[in-house]
Amino acid sequence: MADGTCRIIPLGGLGEVGKNMTAFEAEGSIVVVDAGLAFPRDEHLGVDLVLPDFSYLSERRADIRGVVLTHGHEDHVGALPYLLREVGAPAIWATKLTLGLVKSKLDEHGLLRSSELREIDPDGAPIQLGPFRLEFIRMAHSIPDCVAVVLETPGGRIVCTGDYKIDHTPVDGLKTDVGRLAEIGNRGVDLLLGDSTNAELPGVTGSERLVGEAFRQLIPARTGRVLVASFASNVHRMQQAVDVAVQVGRKVCVVGRSMRKNLNIARSLGYMEVPDDTLIRPAELDDHPPERILILCTGSQGEPLSALTRIAYRDHPAVKIERGDSVIISAKPIPGNELRVHDAINRLARSGAEVLHQANAPVHVSGHGNAEELRLVLALLRPRAVMPVHGEFRMLAAHAQLARDSGVPANSIVMAENGSVVELSPRGVQIVGQVESGVTFVDGLGVGDVRDVALRDRRRLSEDGVLIVVATLASGDGATAAPELIARGFSEPGPLLEEMREEARRVLDECLRGDVREIKLVQEHLHDGVGQLVYDRTGRRPMILPVVIEV
Amino acid sequence: MADGTCRIIPLGGLGEVGKNMTAFEAEGSIVVVDAGLAFPRDEHLGVDLVLPDFSYLSERRADIRGVVLTHGHEDHVGALPYLLREVGAPAIWATKLTLGLVKSKLDEHGLLRSSELREIDPDGAPIQLGPFRLEFIRMAHSIPDCVAVVLETPGGRIVCTGDYKIDHTPVDGLKTDVGRLAEIGNRGVDLLLGDSTNAELPGVTGSERLVGEAFRQLIPARTGRVLVASFASNVHRMQQAVDVAVQVGRKVCVVGRSMRKNLNIARSLGYMEVPDDTLIRPAELDDHPPERILILCTGSQGEPLSALTRIAYRDHPAVKIERGDSVIISAKPIPGNELRVHDAINRLARSGAEVLHQANAPVHVSGHGNAEELRLVLALLRPRAVMPVHGEFRMLAAHAQLARDSGVPANSIVMAENGSVVELSPRGVQIVGQVESGVTFVDGLGVGDVRDVALRDRRRLSEDGVLIVVATLASGDGATAAPELIARGFSEPGPLLEEMREEARRVLDECLRGDVREIKLVQEHLHDGVGQLVYDRTGRRPMILPVVIEV
Repeated sequence: MADGTCRIIPLGGLGEVGKNMTAFEAEGSIVVVDAGLAFPRDEHLGVDLVLPDFSYLSERRADIRGVVLTHGHEDHVGALPYLLREVGAPAIWATKLTLGLVKSKLDEHGLLRSSELREIDPDGAPIQLGPFRLEFIRMAHSIPDCVAVVLETPGGRIVCTGDYKIDHTPVDGLKTDVGRLAEIGNRGVDLLLGDSTNAELPGVTGSERLVGEAFRQLIPARTGRVLVASFASNVHRMQQAVDVAVQVGRKVCVVGRSMRKNLNIARSLGYMEVPDDTLIRPAELDDHPPERILILCTGSQGEPLSALTRIAYRDHPAVKIERGDSVIISAKPIPGNELRVHDAINRLARSGAEVLHQANAPVHVSGHGNAEELRLVLALLRPRAVMPVHGEFRMLAAHAQLARDSGVPANSIVMAENGSVVELSPRGVQIVGQVESGVTFVDGLGVGDVRDVALRDRRRLSEDGVLIVVATLASGDGATAAPELIARGFSEPGPLLEEMREEARRVLDECLRGDVREIKLVQEHLHDGVGQLVYDRTGRRPMILPVVIEV
Repeated sequence: MADGTCRIIPLGGLGEVGKNMTAFEAEGSIVVVDAGLAFPRDEHLGVDLVLPDFSYLSERRADIRGVVLTHGHEDHVGALPYLLREVGAPAIWATKLTLGLVKSKLDEHGLLRSSELREIDPDGAPIQLGPFRLEFIRMAHSIPDCVAVVLETPGGRIVCTGDYKIDHTPVDGLKTDVGRLAEIGNRGVDLLLGDSTNAELPGVTGSERLVGEAFRQLIPARTGRVLVASFASNVHRMQQAVDVAVQVGRKVCVVGRSMRKNLNIARSLGYMEVPDDTLIRPAELDDHPPERILILCTGSQGEPLSALTRIAYRDHPAVKIERGDSVIISAKPIPGNELRVHDAINRLARSGAEVLHQANAPVHVSGHGNAEELRLVLALLRPRAVMPVHGEFRMLAAHAQLARDSGVPANSIVMAENGSVVELSPRGVQIVGQVESGVTFVDGLGVGDVRDVALRDRRRLSEDGVLIVVATLASGDGATAAPELIARGFSEPGPLLEEMREEARRVLDECLRGDVREIKLVQEHLHDGVGQLVYDRTGRRPMILPVVIEV
């Protein structure tokens, strides 16, 4: 019987898609569930990855009892190497496939030997981490081996669903365990942290098996090569494509580093079955006629350096698209990637390929449950309180509405933000504070050294370019040389450049006449004078950088 | 009986969405159909508008007999002021509403008095422009008063559909005139230029009336204010929202300059009916209770300065969202605008509004026909040859497939590109050449002066920022002063800055020791030395601009 409190601190994943991470804290101990990253948006110019802010966990590093991972997607495990390097953790807990993927990631970061990895068996005994007793429930999603986490805490029983859908016919037969959910619901759930991604969408998401049915209809009818692009971690999607290839006698070639890596991990751990004589290497593609080939590849999001993008731009060393080939893009563009995916489709169509994608063929289903599936989980668990997680605000709001509809009182629905401190006790649930939270940018080799001001400058530079005014200031009061101008990202016609140089000289002369010689002031005058002229003539505002040198 | 030739030169709209413009040329005369613009993509950093390249028309300006506009959307008329200023035209032909919208646009550009505007009556007599005889057919679309153009040319009969859908129940009762299409088909069509936008999508697009039905279900049930955001030119969408408002006794307030302007034009020309006492000004909003207000506003694409975006960011002077308000986003994000629209939805939801949009309510239909509608037009016209227009390559390819399915021989389907010269004669249709074509960027007040190299520089600047190295070179062989560094969009830690300065000094000294004094060479050495150091330390490649001054 809970008679203490537990604090739940979401450090990512609220009001956004990606970088899911939540800290649970009771009696001085902390358990972290997931450590995900987000991919940068276009306005994050030049940023490679976006991580949660680890400040809070850094301060409390001695209290961390473990990190638990619900599944192997980047938005749930991608920040783990950075978390381990900056904060550390006594152990990482995950299911077999998730561990397999994480091991390979930690190995690349040189962190494998220093990390303590422990396997979760969803059907095994509960684990104890400090005051927390954890159980796990199998959930279906777009990667195998996902779990929900049930935490018995001093503040009450909490269920974190992780990402899920209710797939009654998953490819591996491992359904979302509705029986266990009902059993936990009967024990009594004090707080549900539920995946909100598709809360706005009515009805149910189709079963993963539907994509297999589409493959079985589409692939045998094709007479050229067939390419299937999907997420590199979508093991069941790959399995279903491989199954059809085996059935119709096509060899399978896997193109794209991450997909080859994941396929090897999944095969070696028993999550995928691919007959040895089915796989061929890219170099062997020319040994087989087109109608005997199926290519699995990365690039379903139109990522610039991915296999499908290079193939679409006729820049891939091993795969050239020819008339009669078919490309199945078995994924949905993540918001922000639409144009890149459209570009790839256009390029492929221009090369003579038939392109099948979600708009014209049933070749994709979501990995997240729609509203009716969320309602079912609410009905099975009957939580006393609900905290929608994993999603933009509109998705959280839609999930909150589903919770209200299911009978959860409005004052027991917590709309938290990243950094909110949510307290669960026998008296209920409430937000009691806020800790530092936010984002850390990874840019090149630097973690956390790119700040908003740099992004603001990059934005400004990207809009109108930069104009550098170089002026020399003679130390006597002799005449000044004509200033030099350097423009980048700003295509000035010759006469305007000359006019700007004249204006800079005029400003300089005026400064000298007025005995304004302080470099900062001269720079300011140059900035304002030249900037105004450029704006008057062109309507643009390039960044003006005056460089004044005393000689 | 055609016994000559006609050349069709698409100057925009092929392999892209937007800036539709096609020149028809016979016996030394040219007729231009449409003069549209495109909106810049994110990679067009800082560009405001994208226009077709007018080079070809400029060279042939004396031969232009007229510009014909199919409808009033920006992607069909937006480039007109620029075309008139750069090339000119003896007359512009369009239907009444299109002319009304164009007049206002030309007035803003100071071009109204110098332009000859002629009204098209779709039911009237044909018009003769040089060797071309033109007839028009009413087509339904997401703006009233659209027409297809039938051109009798020396090379044969050509039909340009313009944008269309087959709406059997349009709001104004003016359906796509399938009877006229059949009649023209019976006369014999030598070449069809058909809208390809939705060629990939199966089935039919819903009637515009379906949105009205959704409004009639959704709006009366709401108890707070209702906002409806749509394209400012979607007159029927606005009419349907106004009709429901009148029915349930809500006052209507129109927010957003372009929507107010279009509503006024549409009302004054008889295309919209709004009782005078229904309309209120933004300043009067507070005089009425929330349940008595309906706001029509711009911003359905999340455009940065639009009404809805300002409302969402709580930055609008007249409209503040409160809990209980409902926002209907009655549009689909144009590819590339998804994130902006999602951001607006999240902000509105955070302010307590219920947001209805195409993903969770039937509040939008497309203005373009899907595959079955394109098939119907192919069946009615039975063209001897088909040239898919208006769309990205994949859409053109899908349209070509529909034409093949309908019995058009593969060698009579023309996959042209912008600038292709397509020749139609009694012997058939073929591509015979290529003229200069491409894009012209409008950036601030400048038209056409931003070139690809500037965009490439802006892209580079936006990724990693800029680093300026300022060095002075003493004219004797005395020691040099320490170089100065200026960084923007590149957040360097202090020690690295110091290290870079050291490196610059080392490079300079080395140059002097080797008697390398030519400024270009010294700059090159500085660029390479500092650039390599930055890359080694940070993995980034800011633009390095060395400035070397001889003193």
